[in-house]
Amino acid sequence: MSRLWDKGLPLDQRVLRYTAGEDHLLDDRLLVYDVRGSIAHAEMLSAQGLLSTEDCAAICAGLGRLADSYAAGEWSITLEDEDVHTALESRLTDAIGAAGGRLHLGRSRNDQVLTALRLYLADATETIRSCVRGLQDATTRLAARDGDITLPGYTHMQHAMPSSVRLWSEGFAEAFADALDGLEAAKRRIDKNPLGSAAGYGTPGLPLDRELTTAKLGFSQTQVPVTAVQLSRGKAESGLLFEITLLLQDIGRMAADLLLFYTQEFAYVALADEVTTGSSIMPQKRNPDVLELLRAASASAHACLGEALMITAKLPSGYQRDLQRLKAPLFRAIDLAIDSVDIMALVLDGLQFRADHIKLDDGIFATAEAYRLVLEEGLPFRDAYQAIARKFARQPPQ
Amino acid sequence: MSRLWDKGLPLDQRVLRYTAGEDHLLDDRLLVYDVRGSIAHAEMLSAQGLLSTEDCAAICAGLGRLADSYAAGEWSITLEDEDVHTALESRLTDAIGAAGGRLHLGRSRNDQVLTALRLYLADATETIRSCVRGLQDATTRLAARDGDITLPGYTHMQHAMPSSVRLWSEGFAEAFADALDGLEAAKRRIDKNPLGSAAGYGTPGLPLDRELTTAKLGFSQTQVPVTAVQLSRGKAESGLLFEITLLLQDIGRMAADLLLFYTQEFAYVALADEVTTGSSIMPQKRNPDVLELLRAASASAHACLGEALMITAKLPSGYQRDLQRLKAPLFRAIDLAIDSVDIMALVLDGLQFRADHIKLDDGIFATAEAYRLVLEEGLPFRDAYQAIARKFARQPPQ
Amino acid sequence: MSRLWDKGLPLDQRVLRYTAGEDHLLDDRLLVYDVRGSIAHAEMLSAQGLLSTEDCAAICAGLGRLADSYAAGEWSITLEDEDVHTALESRLTDAIGAAGGRLHLGRSRNDQVLTALRLYLADATETIRSCVRGLQDATTRLAARDGDITLPGYTHMQHAMPSSVRLWSEGFAEAFADALDGLEAAKRRIDKNPLGSAAGYGTPGLPLDRELTTAKLGFSQTQVPVTAVQLSRGKAESGLLFEITLLLQDIGRMAADLLLFYTQEFAYVALADEVTTGSSIMPQKRNPDVLELLRAASASAHACLGEALMITAKLPSGYQRDLQRLKAPLFRAIDLAIDSVDIMALVLDGLQFRADHIKLDDGIFATAEAYRLVLEEGLPFRDAYQAIARKFARQPPQ
Amino acid sequence: MSRLWDKGLPLDQRVLRYTAGEDHLLDDRLLVYDVRGSIAHAEMLSAQGLLSTEDCAAICAGLGRLADSYAAGEWSITLEDEDVHTALESRLTDAIGAAGGRLHLGRSRNDQVLTALRLYLADATETIRSCVRGLQDATTRLAARDGDITLPGYTHMQHAMPSSVRLWSEGFAEAFADALDGLEAAKRRIDKNPLGSAAGYGTPGLPLDRELTTAKLGFSQTQVPVTAVQLSRGKAESGLLFEITLLLQDIGRMAADLLLFYTQEFAYVALADEVTTGSSIMPQKRNPDVLELLRAASASAHACLGEALMITAKLPSGYQRDLQRLKAPLFRAIDLAIDSVDIMALVLDGLQFRADHIKLDDGIFATAEAYRLVLEEGLPFRDAYQAIARKFARQPPQ
Repeated sequence: MSRLWDKGLPLDQRVLRYTAGEDHLLDDRLLVYDVRGSIAHAEMLSAQGLLSTEDCAAICAGLGRLADSYAAGEWSITLEDEDVHTALESRLTDAIGAAGGRLHLGRSRNDQVLTALRLYLADATETIRSCVRGLQDATTRLAARDGDITLPGYTHMQHAMPSSVRLWSEGFAEAFADALDGLEAAKRRIDKNPLGSAAGYGTPGLPLDRELTTAKLGFSQTQVPVTAVQLSRGKAESGLLFEITLLLQDIGRMAADLLLFYTQEFAYVALADEVTTGSSIMPQKRNPDVLELLRAASASAHACLGEALMITAKLPSGYQRDLQRLKAPLFRAIDLAIDSVDIMALVLDGLQFRADHIKLDDGIFATAEAYRLVLEEGLPFRDAYQAIARKFARQPPQ
Repeated sequence: MSRLWDKGLPLDQRVLRYTAGEDHLLDDRLLVYDVRGSIAHAEMLSAQGLLSTEDCAAICAGLGRLADSYAAGEWSITLEDEDVHTALESRLTDAIGAAGGRLHLGRSRNDQVLTALRLYLADATETIRSCVRGLQDATTRLAARDGDITLPGYTHMQHAMPSSVRLWSEGFAEAFADALDGLEAAKRRIDKNPLGSAAGYGTPGLPLDRELTTAKLGFSQTQVPVTAVQLSRGKAESGLLFEITLLLQDIGRMAADLLLFYTQEFAYVALADEVTTGSSIMPQKRNPDVLELLRAASASAHACLGEALMITAKLPSGYQRDLQRLKAPLFRAIDLAIDSVDIMALVLDGLQFRADHIKLDDGIFATAEAYRLVLEEGLPFRDAYQAIARKFARQPPQ
Repeated sequence: MSRLWDKGLPLDQRVLRYTAGEDHLLDDRLLVYDVRGSIAHAEMLSAQGLLSTEDCAAICAGLGRLADSYAAGEWSITLEDEDVHTALESRLTDAIGAAGGRLHLGRSRNDQVLTALRLYLADATETIRSCVRGLQDATTRLAARDGDITLPGYTHMQHAMPSSVRLWSEGFAEAFADALDGLEAAKRRIDKNPLGSAAGYGTPGLPLDRELTTAKLGFSQTQVPVTAVQLSRGKAESGLLFEITLLLQDIGRMAADLLLFYTQEFAYVALADEVTTGSSIMPQKRNPDVLELLRAASASAHACLGEALMITAKLPSGYQRDLQRLKAPLFRAIDLAIDSVDIMALVLDGLQFRADHIKLDDGIFATAEAYRLVLEEGLPFRDAYQAIARKFARQPPQ
Repeated sequence: MSRLWDKGLPLDQRVLRYTAGEDHLLDDRLLVYDVRGSIAHAEMLSAQGLLSTEDCAAICAGLGRLADSYAAGEWSITLEDEDVHTALESRLTDAIGAAGGRLHLGRSRNDQVLTALRLYLADATETIRSCVRGLQDATTRLAARDGDITLPGYTHMQHAMPSSVRLWSEGFAEAFADALDGLEAAKRRIDKNPLGSAAGYGTPGLPLDRELTTAKLGFSQTQVPVTAVQLSRGKAESGLLFEITLLLQDIGRMAADLLLFYTQEFAYVALADEVTTGSSIMPQKRNPDVLELLRAASASAHACLGEALMITAKLPSGYQRDLQRLKAPLFRAIDLAIDSVDIMALVLDGLQFRADHIKLDDGIFATAEAYRLVLEEGLPFRDAYQAIARKFARQPPQ
């Protein structure tokens, strides 16, 4: 049990570890976006006459080289850097001298961080969407392979009416299509340019052109007024986390169905060997671990959503350092979504329905029979229902 | 401490109380929507030749009379009815005889309940939106009254840069505009017609026209395939709850600001007497109870969202009775949203900023000064920043 | 969609409705506890010479009569009363005159409310515990009836090793015993007397004897210092909600097992007719609605826990009106726990395991066989495991 | 945006990455506990005649050497190992040969993992408790330094009655003492020996002595029956997470108070320079980042609690792989608690109350005055209250 306390660290080191936290690790994925944001900012400053063409060129070239050398693994963000933003700015100034000190004009850490984050979120959302499309394709392949196999349609986990692998698959396919739409809609809150709001109160006396960075960075609008920017922190994040939670719930429910179908009592499906694992004590077993982990995944996504919402709740308006804690749950959920959607597609591709094991309960055709009575004999549905119900009056269990 | 147990109730009564729960109370608000859904269904059956014109007319007229007499307070939904749907169908059959028994043809309780719920949700969403517009208006009136008053712009709850009541108000106004957009977007999942999916597996042998009820009920699309309908349960609900949570968080954060401004130490605002209350022990006090309750409201909304998401998590596909538990948190949060948004508008209308009490920290102009150095003397921002920082070097507290 | 707004209510009425909320309904259960708290307080004042013997007697008799007439249904708490505490104090003063105005000496609404609440919570916790004991008894009866029936022991929802109805029941019985212990432990935070802390800063100049009310009310200790009392709000509440959540999760998992066993594919159990319900469309069905509602119940309890925790989070110390919002989720979860535990006992009493339908997978004895190899032939377990594993090498599905 | 998908990894590698997840990193802290559990198991097997003295000695010595070399950084757990348990067993067999294969007799991964986890949790709980004691000490030092300084006692964030730094500190000290008691109580669920339950159904035919490992490992009781063990998964974990959440909420509320006191408008406290940070844009600022991160920390702990509870909800009884997902939130919250409690002690040690800035509102003595009227003039409290209230009748804001 290690405590910072016990390590004899000097006071400021302990505080640094607490305040910087995991940022130097988390920020790895933000680097390219911070470079993009900084280049757009520099070019805007230059266009506004706030930065010379030479300094702008030096800054943009310097940032580009830093991005390249980072991608090549030549340096990494350290705890002492605190985060990606300081890491880049200090290395830039080391590399190009005084011009580096001109980059932060008209910008605060607050809008800089958020710009990089939103650029990242736009990409992450698209990545998740492409995973979902892959899962849809796997669903389609399954329906093509096994779609004609009859399945009981269940309500209350009881045989209700006839269904099929096709209908089962297509129900989930609609859910995934809905997830695509939901993820697309979640971009609305991501797609607002925060750059130029600075610390949340603009840049008095400094003639920035916020629309220019909006255009350069591909945002669909500039977020105004400046006070709206920090007040909106957490919303784009939570919006994406909410959609991820719904998506992982669908996958979890698909997993729940398949875990049921995979029991020996149902034996409706076979899983590919690769997605099952052995037991440490029971030599005969092949366990559907992947499906269980998928079933559990929505709990983690939901917790990330809850965390994000709770972090911003009740905060006075204006930037608060509390917001830094948004990053960890956000990134965890995004990674979980990407991995889980992809792995479910894998599971589906190895899935076989076992037609010979699937038997329908006699009663499953009762509704259709009642409909027939209505159509053929003109009975009110309620009377037809009663007539059929008498046929199926429950026997006590033997 | 009363337990059903202790009341000597017969077994089936205890089970009824547990399974029907609060539905007979909760369903009050669904009655008009169930009537609308049933009329559309009857008319579709009639158009398809599955119900005679006379029976259809009798059903529609009978339902209309039941809705009227319900609105007039002539009857109510009882525990024995279980829910609004049984209450209406049994009273209809009592009133018009056998034709009443023809209404449920091609429909299950599952799609019927969901149809009424979605019709209600569409209206509820619009009601919340109209409340939010009222709140925006109150914000605009505040900015018109007190907008020119200077306020410190805070970051980390410290004076950061100059702001104003106008900027403060407009930041929240953007948040409310965003809530309007978010609520509008939440209708996407509400706006799919479930009617005709029956128990979740369609109506074998029965030629329904689902597009007709979609048109009659004003849904923008028919939800297909039939298996998608029950799988989607909870998503439209959670989507609305998510937007309500964000909205109440904004209101809670506005309340947090105002509670801070209302402390004696700040004394930046005065509240109308009507929105403060006295103390039972301290005769001198006027307490901002309304603002505190508003600050706390998002916790309740967030909990409703969490409850809805947890209810559907991990469920096998197909209708499960678990879904009944969605109604209570959904209705609680909707009512809370309507009341809270309205009451915040009331608070704003009685709010006065006290210009004479608001003093800005000297340091608040430091950034502007640094910008001036950059513009006038061409210093890199980082150097200007250092120069100004030296001026403001912190004194130890006396 | 009704809004307070639209009703033309005067401003102060709207505010009253928002601030008093549902208290006049919720407080019904607190009345006897508030009377107990007030009588103890009056007797303490009298013992300290702060209230004459006659006034004390008048107060105690008056409160007793109010409790009796309330129990007899002769009056109720109205919205205008705001809550039970004002309802009692104002009716007391109406009934006994000026002496009634002496009761609130040395007491604030803050400690008064909390005293009544903690007295109630102590009783509610015991009620839940007695329900749990009833459920344990039902579990014991089940084990006595069907305990010898063999069941597969599952891991990963796969047959793992042999088990029995007895082992299955006893596993849950241990969970319920653990719940009893947990609920008992949850009393620790309930069992601290808040009375005498007044608004949270004591009663300067007034010689109260807090230990006396502690003794009279049966608390195990006096909560000191006075500032600790309001800071602790929500903890006793959350502690109980946490235990309720665990308890309802166990019941939900028992329901999940039984829902699995009740599928036609397993058909391991029969349920009593009283705990199943029919379908509105499928005449052949008997649905296990009670079990589904029990499965879903822990979501509601968990949401109540989350709501309570979020309400107190981040609040400055000292009483805040936010705390009023604790009552609703607390009462909801308590009622849900009582009803759900009782109804699960009912389900168990009507449950029959169907021995003839239960078949064990051959592989289920593999571990025992491996153990035999170890014991009889001295093989290392890993070698025995490998030997048996080869026997059970998976066949591809036919 | 990297996807496993895109990396061209073979199928089984992708599945391994998904199923093993972060275990090889998370398990670092479990190694010493797994070694302890394994040694106790081996010694029990030997005492029962199921393992020769020589093999037992070889196993124990081998495990000891592996623990030492691990501590010395000579090896680490790799993704291919999957987790600490496989890592140790396979290295042991490499080191000592066939005897290593005898260690897993009468044990499953299920009880092995849980044994190591509970041993760890017992230690982690004690570590947190020692941190809390350190925080209590810092609180005591603060009260000794500044305790006599008068503070307003607030309710509704308004001056209510006189208080002091001592009373403020002692209120929190009681909360921390309560946390110590709560953490101690949380050990009850940790302190049950799962070893010997194997996969959850015992070890048919194998004469284990579970009480012996209970004694060797210092558990206070053996968890029986065997089926109770896996059913209890998540409860000890959630119990600890619940206590951590309460603890971090107290710290978060202390932070909220201090953030309020640190505003320029209050200016009641000075913070040590080491616990404040500068701004990237505003040269004059010193920001209380540490306090903000502390305020936000309970959101993360609460989310971990929620995640743990949701993971186990609704699961059929018997081990499920879902349970693996408990580890990450559990470890995150424990680390967060340790760091946050320690850092808050650091903040308190550098905290100074600024007596000269603290002014009490006149009205703050009103209650004491009313009490004086009661004591000296015999007025009923309600009349004294009215008399004083008239004196303080609110002026409209100027």
